[in-house]
Amino acid sequence: MQRIALIGAGFMGSHHAANLAAHPDVNFVAVCDPVLDRALAVGQQYGATATSDPAEVFDPSRVDAVLVASSTDTHATHLRAAADAGVAVLCEKPIDPSLDQAVETARYVAAHGVRAMTGFNRRFDRDHAELKAVVDAGTIGDVSLLQLTSRGPEVPPLEYIKVSGGQMRDQAVHFFDLARWIAGVEPVSVYAAGTALADPRIAEYGDVDTSAITLRLETGALVQIDCARRTGYGYDERIEVLGSTGMVESARQRTSSVIRYSAGAGHTAGMNPGWLERALPTYTAELDHFVRCLETGAPFDVTLEDGVRAQAIAEAATRSLRSGRAEPVEHPQV
Amino acid sequence: MQRIALIGAGFMGSHHAANLAAHPDVNFVAVCDPVLDRALAVGQQYGATATSDPAEVFDPSRVDAVLVASSTDTHATHLRAAADAGVAVLCEKPIDPSLDQAVETARYVAAHGVRAMTGFNRRFDRDHAELKAVVDAGTIGDVSLLQLTSRGPEVPPLEYIKVSGGQMRDQAVHFFDLARWIAGVEPVSVYAAGTALADPRIAEYGDVDTSAITLRLETGALVQIDCARRTGYGYDERIEVLGSTGMVESARQRTSSVIRYSAGAGHTAGMNPGWLERALPTYTAELDHFVRCLETGAPFDVTLEDGVRAQAIAEAATRSLRSGRAEPVEHPQV
Amino acid sequence: MQRIALIGAGFMGSHHAANLAAHPDVNFVAVCDPVLDRALAVGQQYGATATSDPAEVFDPSRVDAVLVASSTDTHATHLRAAADAGVAVLCEKPIDPSLDQAVETARYVAAHGVRAMTGFNRRFDRDHAELKAVVDAGTIGDVSLLQLTSRGPEVPPLEYIKVSGGQMRDQAVHFFDLARWIAGVEPVSVYAAGTALADPRIAEYGDVDTSAITLRLETGALVQIDCARRTGYGYDERIEVLGSTGMVESARQRTSSVIRYSAGAGHTAGMNPGWLERALPTYTAELDHFVRCLETGAPFDVTLEDGVRAQAIAEAATRSLRSGRAEPVEHPQV
Amino acid sequence: MQRIALIGAGFMGSHHAANLAAHPDVNFVAVCDPVLDRALAVGQQYGATATSDPAEVFDPSRVDAVLVASSTDTHATHLRAAADAGVAVLCEKPIDPSLDQAVETARYVAAHGVRAMTGFNRRFDRDHAELKAVVDAGTIGDVSLLQLTSRGPEVPPLEYIKVSGGQMRDQAVHFFDLARWIAGVEPVSVYAAGTALADPRIAEYGDVDTSAITLRLETGALVQIDCARRTGYGYDERIEVLGSTGMVESARQRTSSVIRYSAGAGHTAGMNPGWLERALPTYTAELDHFVRCLETGAPFDVTLEDGVRAQAIAEAATRSLRSGRAEPVEHPQV
Repeated sequence: MQRIALIGAGFMGSHHAANLAAHPDVNFVAVCDPVLDRALAVGQQYGATATSDPAEVFDPSRVDAVLVASSTDTHATHLRAAADAGVAVLCEKPIDPSLDQAVETARYVAAHGVRAMTGFNRRFDRDHAELKAVVDAGTIGDVSLLQLTSRGPEVPPLEYIKVSGGQMRDQAVHFFDLARWIAGVEPVSVYAAGTALADPRIAEYGDVDTSAITLRLETGALVQIDCARRTGYGYDERIEVLGSTGMVESARQRTSSVIRYSAGAGHTAGMNPGWLERALPTYTAELDHFVRCLETGAPFDVTLEDGVRAQAIAEAATRSLRSGRAEPVEHPQV
Repeated sequence: MQRIALIGAGFMGSHHAANLAAHPDVNFVAVCDPVLDRALAVGQQYGATATSDPAEVFDPSRVDAVLVASSTDTHATHLRAAADAGVAVLCEKPIDPSLDQAVETARYVAAHGVRAMTGFNRRFDRDHAELKAVVDAGTIGDVSLLQLTSRGPEVPPLEYIKVSGGQMRDQAVHFFDLARWIAGVEPVSVYAAGTALADPRIAEYGDVDTSAITLRLETGALVQIDCARRTGYGYDERIEVLGSTGMVESARQRTSSVIRYSAGAGHTAGMNPGWLERALPTYTAELDHFVRCLETGAPFDVTLEDGVRAQAIAEAATRSLRSGRAEPVEHPQV
Repeated sequence: MQRIALIGAGFMGSHHAANLAAHPDVNFVAVCDPVLDRALAVGQQYGATATSDPAEVFDPSRVDAVLVASSTDTHATHLRAAADAGVAVLCEKPIDPSLDQAVETARYVAAHGVRAMTGFNRRFDRDHAELKAVVDAGTIGDVSLLQLTSRGPEVPPLEYIKVSGGQMRDQAVHFFDLARWIAGVEPVSVYAAGTALADPRIAEYGDVDTSAITLRLETGALVQIDCARRTGYGYDERIEVLGSTGMVESARQRTSSVIRYSAGAGHTAGMNPGWLERALPTYTAELDHFVRCLETGAPFDVTLEDGVRAQAIAEAATRSLRSGRAEPVEHPQV
Repeated sequence: MQRIALIGAGFMGSHHAANLAAHPDVNFVAVCDPVLDRALAVGQQYGATATSDPAEVFDPSRVDAVLVASSTDTHATHLRAAADAGVAVLCEKPIDPSLDQAVETARYVAAHGVRAMTGFNRRFDRDHAELKAVVDAGTIGDVSLLQLTSRGPEVPPLEYIKVSGGQMRDQAVHFFDLARWIAGVEPVSVYAAGTALADPRIAEYGDVDTSAITLRLETGALVQIDCARRTGYGYDERIEVLGSTGMVESARQRTSSVIRYSAGAGHTAGMNPGWLERALPTYTAELDHFVRCLETGAPFDVTLEDGVRAQAIAEAATRSLRSGRAEPVEHPQV
């Protein structure tokens, strides 16, 4: 049984809280939020102690691990606090908006020997994991091409866009991680082309809402990613991997298996309305992996180094958006 | 908040217990099983009082409703106890192995004005409910033909088969209920042909393991049901409704959306290994409906009368298996 | 190179004519129709001699084989003429509206040692043939259940219905043949329930437009067939075979692979508007089989006996519609 | 009725010959090939005059139009001869291996007022045309992203690769044309990344066998194309168009609708073994369009200018493979 505290009782925090409360091997001991009322609300619902002071949470006598789901700019601070306290940590991406700070933080945590996991939840998508298993089994031979589609239903509020870091760091970064994870090798360069078609004001912030990205991997294999902020048809995520002897696809998921036929037409269910509907089970599976690793001592499947690596690709992709050419990808050592 | 007790802490009881514990509007107060240790195990896990004495459960000062998931032969007794105590009840099918007893019991409960629901969980299958909504909306016009497929992965233990009442009463009965529910009208006759191909010993018990059933509804519409005890490919359930202007299908569900392609072939996920994997969410939705109706006073979607009606079809179908002709269906008034 | 004549230059005759003209190993020598102008029109288009006198066609010095696509009541006469002339024949179903006459005719042809094939074109549907190959390979084990769906887009003209012989003889007969062919064994009994929902006037002719049929095969395996004259969504044909170790399906075919997604919905192509759009390639494949067998001496895959056998099932099914019970199926020897 | 001659009686020529012979509005008058025996063989089969002298073919008193399917280096010569003779022409791509020569040739033909069509057969793929119609109808709103997949089953012979002009000019060019056609606007720049994974010797010729291409269109919309020479699973072609209000896909086509289920798995048909199996109907439809336009005077859907434009993209893409940056696309005026 792991005693786990939650930092951040906002939108995602409340979903994490529900998962913590439901997990049979978790004792959900405390919840911390700078807005005490939010912490109290969540704490009351699940019988966890509420606080607005993170120091109360990083106490190894009360807590085995902390789940950090607070605002992006606080992640590094909490990670360092976990390192200082010797408490394991599962932290949402990114480690820090600045790649340099992210690297420093990851090194700090590593130096303290504290177990830390980055919250790349999409790795815990059941279908993506099944696809990864097919690739790993060698069933499609050597990987030569990956295609990843990442499309959101509608443009987020411009206030969010402004502080998001841009489409590469905010949206594409999940798929940079998936590409590395599935292919099992690092990218050497990235080219990104973007456009602001969904809302021209996005261009005023120097950002894009539709982009086409190409990675070249160490093996020579190529990766194509398309990212869109607005589909008009819901949330769409799919992955395709071409190998030397076959292909495997984690196809777009419809929300039901009901099909209607009328004259000359078939009518099926569509996509999920938003990413959350698709992603909810991934958070459950992610937490389960975290807890299982804590209990068995097995290494996490997603480390802080993974967080740093994906972030480095996002930096290079952001440069490429401006330069119009393929940019080399750094691989910071952690 | 509804205070609910569970009767029956066996295989299905333990699933119901988990649902009761997880439901936000349920206070899971007590669990009763003739084997006290089973009751204690479940009670301890979820913080419910354990007992082997049903009388402790039918106490309106402690309990608002009871979920009956005990052995089939005890259902009628518990339903009558609920009626006597004035406690609402959700009871697994059948009401009683004997149709006459079932009718008497349903009348007894009705006479006491107690709210009672039959556990036809498949009505709460998300896809089937979506299909039903399409039919009800008139999108496919007037119903002319239903096709229902009910196929289990492998023959249950012969000990189970012996006491099951036969394929019509044990397996097909769920689909008799679905047919009535979807079409919204009653059957007037039923023809059933059966065979024991999966295990010839089933024939020795006068039972069948593969059957083809035809219902004629009051409107003249027809229903085809195929029931198999053994598929070799997992659990398969599907429904198709043909109307005067179109068709709607609740198609077979694959366990993932991963597709692999090799030379000349595609490889997809298959069916669920067994009925439980498909059915688990239906029990959650069923309980949610029960609780919501208790809280709002809305009528249940599945009444004891529905349980009686489906059972009457199963009786007629069992007669038809022997007579080789279409048998009239009774509609006992409750 | 086979010299082939066509009898019947009507609707289907003109499709057969196009196939005869296009086949590389066929010399389309003559076309015969009681309406000479129709014969002339077809003959001119494809360079075949036109006549209204069948005697000119049954001339082994000019013709190796005859394709009979004339009206149903003339089939037996032409089959006997082919037998007398010693000319091979491919004849559309049925051999004769009367089962007795059909049996007599088949025996007559057999006695003359003339090669004759019945035009059960659906056996030459590419997907159905692939399904049959899977069954024959033993991949799904022993057959326990077949499901066949045969649904037309709209009720044919009542004038046609009146003389069609009824839904069993006119529509279901193709699927009786498919069931025998796929299972590789004979039915012992048939139950049919029917209703006239699409057009009540059909009931006045003692016919039905929607029916649910159950066959019991010699092995104990069961067959379900659903036949509808009106779908509202086009022509729908599908087959499913359940075996002891798996299942194989010749699924409904959509007319394209284009899929559109809008908010909450997917939109696919639908079914073919009518049976002809689906069936056209089967006539080409059927002719090809006929010609190949003529050239190699191999036996036809569909004999007159097959025609008689399917017709005998249709007779029993027609009796069952009235009797409300399973009727035994005769197996006339040819 | 159009009198049409064929130049080129090789592999593709023989398919064109069969289409010419089968088209009801075509009089297939002559076939020309430098290897007279090949011309004779085809001519004999279809009753067309055979010659090795192109001059006999460009004779407006005998021929209304010429279909050029000869080797690539002869296209320009035959196009100019058609211009000189005033004979309409359908010419396979490219107009000439040299873009400059192609532009000159197209201008020459235009200056002579001769009707000329480029053989971009994939525009006549039934599904792609249906997708185009959905886009044109505005059903998915403004186009923001296209994804095109072009994958061949196995690496062509190295002798072919050597003289092919490279993957951009040989394979991708068809999809450059499809992108222009579907989007209805021109590209302004192209980025291409390539790799030789299927056969390293391809790199020795300065070519690639796997590539990821990004086009930026005038509207700001983006296009992703992935090209592979070897799939291991057959020929794979698909198109996806994302618009502002929805998405439409011309999905990968399986060769049948047969599905088999075994324990935990579904088994479907796969892709076509090669491009020809998929493309054959497009040649028939392409010829039909050509003939219909000749008969009605309607403009061709694919002009020589289209051929030039696609070729200009291929040139820029080939430059980008080397430069590692997005290259501007020229739009030569014809």
